Amino acid sequence: MSTIGIRGTFFDFIDDPWKHIGREQDAARFHADGLLVVQDGVIADFGPYGQLAPKHPGLEITHIKDRLILPGFIDGHIHLPQTRVLGAYGEQLLPWLNKWVFPEEVKYKDRDYAREGVTRFFDTLLASGTTTCQAFTTTFKVTTEELFEEASRRNMRVIAGLTGIDRNAPDYFVDTADNFYRDTVELIGRYHRNGRNLYAITPRFAMGSSEEMLARCEQLKKEYPDCWVNTHISENPAEIRTLLDLHQDCTDYLGVYEKYGLVGPKFSGGHGVWLSNDEFRRMSRKGAAVVFCPCSNLFLGSGLFRLGRATDPNCRVRMSFGSDMGGGNRFSLLATLDDAYKVGMCNNTLLDGSVNPGHQDLAEAERNKLSPYRGFWSVTLGGAEGLYIDDLLGNFDPGKEADFVALDWNGGPMAMSWHQSLAYEGEGPATVEEAANLLFGIMMVGDDRAVDETWIMGKRLYKKS
Amino acid sequence: MSTIGIRGTFFDFIDDPWKHIGREQDAARFHADGLLVVQDGVIADFGPYGQLAPKHPGLEITHIKDRLILPGFIDGHIHLPQTRVLGAYGEQLLPWLNKWVFPEEVKYKDRDYAREGVTRFFDTLLASGTTTCQAFTTTFKVTTEELFEEASRRNMRVIAGLTGIDRNAPDYFVDTADNFYRDTVELIGRYHRNGRNLYAITPRFAMGSSEEMLARCEQLKKEYPDCWVNTHISENPAEIRTLLDLHQDCTDYLGVYEKYGLVGPKFSGGHGVWLSNDEFRRMSRKGAAVVFCPCSNLFLGSGLFRLGRATDPNCRVRMSFGSDMGGGNRFSLLATLDDAYKVGMCNNTLLDGSVNPGHQDLAEAERNKLSPYRGFWSVTLGGAEGLYIDDLLGNFDPGKEADFVALDWNGGPMAMSWHQSLAYEGEGPATVEEAANLLFGIMMVGDDRAVDETWIMGKRLYKKS
Repeated sequence: MSTIGIRGTFFDFIDDPWKHIGREQDAARFHADGLLVVQDGVIADFGPYGQLAPKHPGLEITHIKDRLILPGFIDGHIHLPQTRVLGAYGEQLLPWLNKWVFPEEVKYKDRDYAREGVTRFFDTLLASGTTTCQAFTTTFKVTTEELFEEASRRNMRVIAGLTGIDRNAPDYFVDTADNFYRDTVELIGRYHRNGRNLYAITPRFAMGSSEEMLARCEQLKKEYPDCWVNTHISENPAEIRTLLDLHQDCTDYLGVYEKYGLVGPKFSGGHGVWLSNDEFRRMSRKGAAVVFCPCSNLFLGSGLFRLGRATDPNCRVRMSFGSDMGGGNRFSLLATLDDAYKVGMCNNTLLDGSVNPGHQDLAEAERNKLSPYRGFWSVTLGGAEGLYIDDLLGNFDPGKEADFVALDWNGGPMAMSWHQSLAYEGEGPATVEEAANLLFGIMMVGDDRAVDETWIMGKRLYKKS
Repeated sequence: MSTIGIRGTFFDFIDDPWKHIGREQDAARFHADGLLVVQDGVIADFGPYGQLAPKHPGLEITHIKDRLILPGFIDGHIHLPQTRVLGAYGEQLLPWLNKWVFPEEVKYKDRDYAREGVTRFFDTLLASGTTTCQAFTTTFKVTTEELFEEASRRNMRVIAGLTGIDRNAPDYFVDTADNFYRDTVELIGRYHRNGRNLYAITPRFAMGSSEEMLARCEQLKKEYPDCWVNTHISENPAEIRTLLDLHQDCTDYLGVYEKYGLVGPKFSGGHGVWLSNDEFRRMSRKGAAVVFCPCSNLFLGSGLFRLGRATDPNCRVRMSFGSDMGGGNRFSLLATLDDAYKVGMCNNTLLDGSVNPGHQDLAEAERNKLSPYRGFWSVTLGGAEGLYIDDLLGNFDPGKEADFVALDWNGGPMAMSWHQSLAYEGEGPATVEEAANLLFGIMMVGDDRAVDETWIMGKRLYKKS
């Protein structure tokens, strides 16, 4: 049994800041001088250093100075095999897939290429402070195997699955529904809950799935109810029109997944840019989650996700944030927060009545403002709730897995440190408000350079050079 | 007389890529192995190394390897005194000014603070590859003095001016129209065309200017017709409504500036998010320029600038790009290109007919796609044209000032170099297309880390450490 202590300045969440409008700091927890006690990778104790240290005599303590220590970031939507092709030029969703993405993803049929890809993928995740992700793979079993194998070697918690597509893609890329079923069953057997791996039944997106494929997904979810379901939803207007032409019995995108019994707890739909109010209500009622991917929604021109609608207290939808790398052009969830803030502010203006008084909704406008509390909650505890893994991680509660990141609040472009010096008085943040000010600077002025160390299950796997 | 040579891989523009739809590379110029000959800071010769080197025997040559050398970036709209407060939380334009900006800018009344500010400002510009900017200062003369003095010490070409505001700001910040006139006259005398300094008559924005202030600006432009005019236009819906309440005789924002004879060549209006088609047409006809500031337009939620409309060949508006730091949350014009691409792609979707067939305009949709050609033209030669300084700089034509930047195409997050390896075959880019692919990677996946060296008038003033 190995027990270690981490001393430093800690910031995490105990509740959803959207539930504390005007008092968001009540959702956060801050220890200017804190101690995290980790036993065999799991948090055994957490609190102010002065109170805890005497309870743990002889503890071997690592003191991480001048950093803000947060739970590791959780990426709810990312595509492993787009690691190299992220940020490809000039197209909306459907032509972008055909021109850039499928030709790159098919390379992951080859085990060596897949192995190089997963190595670079996890290296970059850790350098970005991301400790857990829900990932898409390819239609080729080998890609999923390599992902789980590498995640296991690093002892990282991931949710992933063979990514099925059997229509509306090039011949060289499509699978059959039967193959998909058979491979998925095998992979679930080998990887689900093996170590920290979790399996997601993954129809790539409704437009890429025949009725037979969706029926197989329904069968899989019935046979393996403990598994997750991960897919895309309502991303691009042209995609939505095409889909509804194919499913004349459905009135909206969510309806297609509902028809096959997939919408419920542990279901994630990436994007949801064009979800109707009624779809949000149904997702809320069923406990399904949407994954907000602002870098991607802007990069592919998909549109402005209605953050203030998804967070309506009357029909709150579970939500995690995703980089959607490579539809998103950056790995870092700090970049995701940058673009999420911008999407929110554009929505804010559209809802304040200044453009069209008929569209005024001041409460929804306000919920679109991504404060540092809302932002960092969304990529830690909120992201875990969205993925139904908040029993395992997401904050520093004892019993949870000790994945965390140490942020250098001055990391970023040259302008950064002078900017950050406005945020606090002493040598480091002394209050939750000062820490939140620094975090806002990190998300809007800094970037992945702020990630100084990344720890997995109490072991440091990344240190900025 | 000092003559030096720079050898390396050069990329610049000889024309506007929007004039070469489908053949944008015809607007660019590329030398995989080129030579730039610089005499006393001015370009004396430029071309392929093999052709030029024999013509310049004994030339002292600096060989910049594994870099793309471009003309220095031109920032058409930036606020010196917001260097520290960039990226401040939670407000649209008007409350943001009052809550964050004016309290910071007033510090620049103090010469020592102003001096620290300008030092950090120019340091960060150079680290971002920006060699020329058109800058706002404050209502206090000392800020403008310090800006021009520091620019002179670094021998950088800047356009700037005392930034007048005499209403709709806190008492501690407003000036009087008479003071503004007197100080401007004095500053023009001391700085305009002194070294590389150029003076812009700068009413901050129409809402902050009384009729008397605008009349003084008109008088100044008549007395000093060689000076520039720099201001804001049509940024935020609430601002526009307030302004038109104050000017009941004007039907739109541009009309207010037209009323005072300010709209013509050398006039720049920052933002222009909500300009009507008619305003675009009038700006085009009069030779006035708009400055597109996407980071700011998203950060403050101002809206989506209609890039494809401003570039309509039937009424093309001169245009430069601006960081609008600190309404924009980053100094780097690479970040500006990142957000500009995203704004363009959102417009692309809104105009392709998939959301509303009635709004379909495929030509305008296409003009919204910010290719690397369009992007880097906009921050070099195009930016210079927008500011009416393309006779002085903007590309590598002999006779122009030798301000340039050496870009490391692998600079950026960890994912960067593997991504960039898709863009070219050999050891470096061999064709204009390969170079353009690398540039797109720099703007969408990289960041200011790509800026390895920045040169001013043939002298290296910045080298990444």
